[in-house]
Amino acid sequence: MRAVWLEGREVEMIDQRLLPYRLEIVSIHTAEETAEAIRNMTVRGAPAIGASAAYGMALAAMNGDDIKAAAAAVLKAARPTAFDLFFAVDFMLDRIAAGEDATKAADRYADSIVAKCHMIGENGASLIRDGAKIMTHCNAGALATVDCGTALAPMRTAHRQGKKIFVYVSETRPRLQGMKLTAYELFNEDIPNAIIVDGASGHFMRKGVDLIIVGADRIALNGDFANKIGTFEKAVLAKEIGVPFYVAAPVSTFDPKTETGEDIVIEDRGEEEVTDINGNRIAPAGCHAFNPSFDMTPHRYVTGFITEVGVLRPDEITRVLGARI
Amino acid sequence: MRAVWLEGREVEMIDQRLLPYRLEIVSIHTAEETAEAIRNMTVRGAPAIGASAAYGMALAAMNGDDIKAAAAAVLKAARPTAFDLFFAVDFMLDRIAAGEDATKAADRYADSIVAKCHMIGENGASLIRDGAKIMTHCNAGALATVDCGTALAPMRTAHRQGKKIFVYVSETRPRLQGMKLTAYELFNEDIPNAIIVDGASGHFMRKGVDLIIVGADRIALNGDFANKIGTFEKAVLAKEIGVPFYVAAPVSTFDPKTETGEDIVIEDRGEEEVTDINGNRIAPAGCHAFNPSFDMTPHRYVTGFITEVGVLRPDEITRVLGARI
Repeated sequence: MRAVWLEGREVEMIDQRLLPYRLEIVSIHTAEETAEAIRNMTVRGAPAIGASAAYGMALAAMNGDDIKAAAAAVLKAARPTAFDLFFAVDFMLDRIAAGEDATKAADRYADSIVAKCHMIGENGASLIRDGAKIMTHCNAGALATVDCGTALAPMRTAHRQGKKIFVYVSETRPRLQGMKLTAYELFNEDIPNAIIVDGASGHFMRKGVDLIIVGADRIALNGDFANKIGTFEKAVLAKEIGVPFYVAAPVSTFDPKTETGEDIVIEDRGEEEVTDINGNRIAPAGCHAFNPSFDMTPHRYVTGFITEVGVLRPDEITRVLGARI
Repeated sequence: MRAVWLEGREVEMIDQRLLPYRLEIVSIHTAEETAEAIRNMTVRGAPAIGASAAYGMALAAMNGDDIKAAAAAVLKAARPTAFDLFFAVDFMLDRIAAGEDATKAADRYADSIVAKCHMIGENGASLIRDGAKIMTHCNAGALATVDCGTALAPMRTAHRQGKKIFVYVSETRPRLQGMKLTAYELFNEDIPNAIIVDGASGHFMRKGVDLIIVGADRIALNGDFANKIGTFEKAVLAKEIGVPFYVAAPVSTFDPKTETGEDIVIEDRGEEEVTDINGNRIAPAGCHAFNPSFDMTPHRYVTGFITEVGVLRPDEITRVLGARI
């Protein structure tokens, strides 16, 4: 099962807000409903958001909606940070304008993400030695990417190659995607792992971590990138402690219009994501919270980007990807 | 109301596990019960643990128990990291051996903590400018220290001096003492604050934090110190970003027998503190967690120690405190 797929005139997606407690599929019929599912995080993870947006455009085309003015705008307004969302909508506008069938184009987009994730797995697995201890953050697994994953793909490939690995999964407050989704995916594939609180990352890095692999929501041309809140902290600690720090992402996450990370919009979400857990208020009455959903990590903390075209140093991005993005 | 006090032949303490939802007082009658209250975190925070242990020794003396062999041993075995626990038990053994009334000695110990915290408040407030943005971690407030606090004392004093301050409270997973206790204390004193997830500390430091103040559970003679898990990460980020990083603690938290932080025992607690929240399991079935309760921060990340005898650089500890500890 994929995280999102097209079935007739409906888009089906796993409701990731209910995992790991319940596996429910929701059916989506319009671009507006797709945008709402992206906004409320029924579907999350930059590549899966991109695929959902592509399918949302296909729904609009099937429904005879105004694709360019209405559907594209409502989808692009769903969340501000993940670049794949904008990339996918523009890809669909381009393909539809070129006369390609919208359904076929969206399926091709989703298939290409999965194929790229498998290449990311191959390219990243070469960085993982037998016996490696790896740390990751949030969920850049199959759920975040239609199938297979970005950050988790090299771990899956290394595991299938017979390498014995161990994964530290930082739980990723406030929404706990690390605990709820990544630990769940690894457990289901028999990859040994342990959940840790986000604040314990440095403690375990000092005890011995071979490499860190995270995903990304948007990567600037100089290699600065946005990812789930807490990523910047891990990158700084990794550099200080001497742990290689990798970002796994398809080329569709590189934004050719963003020169540096200072230009990336960081989404602030509602404070109840922090003050409530699973619908129950945890914080004292009257207290408030700030809830930035992402942070920006400068390129000087990045060892390399694991992409479908190879592992790139930050200073190689424009040279290698210039023609492609 | 203090966090812990003696009333007749009972020690009374606020059950900090129930805050901020319910304010309940538990009554304790023996050294063994005191040790259990320390172990299960009915009372927590290094100075409050020290005061509780002193009162536990007083209960043992009142009950005619074997103070030296039994009561001291059971109390010292309650938790391994906070040095105040060992300091307080040895203080009581010394006073009782010298013929002082155990009850009076324990009250004197608790009173002296409060007096030291007020001095820490005075000494630390001089570091806080009007308009300052301050970050703290866990709870080193009144609840952690009988009354007033260590890390929170300078903020309280600055606030009473009329300085407008703002406090970022990192929630402090897994037990959320920042969210549940520190935000609660600050809210009750009308000190403006916001809860943030632990992983957002670096993000907000980069947006502008004037100083960080945390407490400590044990400080080595070279200035390395143990404190709640997540402290080391903040210290590394503070140094990288250029934010002054202070540790507020009474001299009783300095361990004269510990040369460096490598010798500090870090307590591992049960995984259910991570996988469950308020008694409800959050983690996927079958998944496991690691739960180190503290981490160790090397002295090179510390700007200064705010103590009752002044603000000390790490290299001043042995010279200034040598005669006192």
